[in-house]
Amino acid sequence: MTILALTGGVGGAKLCLGLARVLAPEEVVFVVNTGDDFEHLGFHISPDVDTLTYTLADAANPVAGWGRQGETWHFMEALEELGGETWFRLGDKDLALHVRRRELLAAGQSLTAATAQIAQGLGVRHRILPMSNDPVRTLVHTADGPLAFQHYFVRDRCAPEVTGFDFHGAASASVNPAIPFDQVTGIVICPSNPFVSVDPVLAVPGMREGVRRSGAPVVAVSPIVGGAAIKGPTAKMMQELGVPATTVEVAKHYAQRADGGAPIVTGFVIDAVDADAEGEVQALGLSTTVAQTVMRSLDDRVDLARVVLDFLGASAAAPGLKA
Amino acid sequence: MTILALTGGVGGAKLCLGLARVLAPEEVVFVVNTGDDFEHLGFHISPDVDTLTYTLADAANPVAGWGRQGETWHFMEALEELGGETWFRLGDKDLALHVRRRELLAAGQSLTAATAQIAQGLGVRHRILPMSNDPVRTLVHTADGPLAFQHYFVRDRCAPEVTGFDFHGAASASVNPAIPFDQVTGIVICPSNPFVSVDPVLAVPGMREGVRRSGAPVVAVSPIVGGAAIKGPTAKMMQELGVPATTVEVAKHYAQRADGGAPIVTGFVIDAVDADAEGEVQALGLSTTVAQTVMRSLDDRVDLARVVLDFLGASAAAPGLKA
Repeated sequence: MTILALTGGVGGAKLCLGLARVLAPEEVVFVVNTGDDFEHLGFHISPDVDTLTYTLADAANPVAGWGRQGETWHFMEALEELGGETWFRLGDKDLALHVRRRELLAAGQSLTAATAQIAQGLGVRHRILPMSNDPVRTLVHTADGPLAFQHYFVRDRCAPEVTGFDFHGAASASVNPAIPFDQVTGIVICPSNPFVSVDPVLAVPGMREGVRRSGAPVVAVSPIVGGAAIKGPTAKMMQELGVPATTVEVAKHYAQRADGGAPIVTGFVIDAVDADAEGEVQALGLSTTVAQTVMRSLDDRVDLARVVLDFLGASAAAPGLKA
Repeated sequence: MTILALTGGVGGAKLCLGLARVLAPEEVVFVVNTGDDFEHLGFHISPDVDTLTYTLADAANPVAGWGRQGETWHFMEALEELGGETWFRLGDKDLALHVRRRELLAAGQSLTAATAQIAQGLGVRHRILPMSNDPVRTLVHTADGPLAFQHYFVRDRCAPEVTGFDFHGAASASVNPAIPFDQVTGIVICPSNPFVSVDPVLAVPGMREGVRRSGAPVVAVSPIVGGAAIKGPTAKMMQELGVPATTVEVAKHYAQRADGGAPIVTGFVIDAVDADAEGEVQALGLSTTVAQTVMRSLDDRVDLARVVLDFLGASAAAPGLKA
């Protein structure tokens, strides 16, 4: 059995940690969004890959959700004194990861190889795979004009009104060849932002085809609970895009492809507070299960991982899903 | 009046601080050895330039002599965990200087411009000029084979027996065009290592010519006191090169050119403990003065700076020295 988990940042990493506690390293592969990546201060910054790496290493900052536990900021303070850019915060320990990654990439290693070596150094035994070794950059179209993702997300704190998204480079990127689609028995779309975390992953040529080729059931966990996003700008984006910020709309987003392609999601995990939406989601052709999806404790993460794995098992058993 | 001070690392920086306390920013220019520079962890490391910058900014670590005051080491600890090279210590604050310098150099600025902008950020008002904007790399020939300077000096702690030196790139380097030779009225060779701090500076094409063209007196301060070096491997190197570690031998090194070229040093500052060597040094054709050259306090630095400036004034007044 190999489970594929498609994930973005903090919210997705919580479920990934649950999966990593329930599944052995050979039983799960984490496929991470790199649409958030950018070059800054001469470093390759890969926020979602690093959030997952630190989370699986139990080295993540539990309060901020990003960066390292017990981080210090002497570099940033000194950089400010020297007139450097400080809107994107890099801690003293986090810098070591970035210096090391630059060394590995400069030595000709792929982002996948560099990610693996860094994760190993931090004691992570599960596989973390960037969605692609090629650059894909999420561009956020806003009322103020297009913004590189981190400028929208970090520098401007998601304030500009969103009108759409582009994934620069996606067309010419290749799906990470290390993703073992042929062994995959189940696929999880983590409760990450559908527009800027999951869609970039699915936009990489070969990703949807690989998912479909695997014939495995695909279950998505709703990032919207009771009309709000647990974390991040998902709900705000939906409102700005003119759709209600509801779990049903997220299900629609996954069940209906704007580009007319066949949908890949087969099942949808709804939070208990949205249980009454189950019928509407099923009407979209998705099987459903209701669970406690808000992950406050480690137990919450493990419990949701178990629910998702059971749901995948049931989905796999159901007829017609391999079609 | 413009005084030119040729300097290397810690010992030279002490006298430079004294000169900076006595002279206004427009009255002195510090010309710094960059033969110690190297690329490490993707950064341009310039130890002597940084030691002087931090010293003039009152930001230097008073104990180590290199690096920043109140430095922290979280980056290094995390880098070690990730399997990075840690033999060359870069502190969290010091990293900011290196990230900033890389940005400035990558933007096409010269080492001189980058050095000036960083110094300004740290509140330094005096001019710090790298000897050249071109790469010159000191190679230390040892019984164990040739070593890049920092490998000899830091990684191997000066243990290998020295047999000679090369200044790679010197032949094709150009002297820093910002050095105002035509306005120079006096030149100080700081009490730095003659072989690996001062000789690389003098090896840059145009440096000796500029010094000679200025017609200014050139006084060197002995880095050897009572047969020992105040700091660093000078005495050990002399012994390994088969010359006694005495102030007279340093004077000879400056008064006699191995390559047969005309010597540029006109005066030599001897420490009080070596006063009895004055006759021997004068016999080499150098004027002399005796002073307390061991700089423990800031007052010591200022006092020696005054002695050197008085000696330059007297030397300039003396006949024949402009020849």
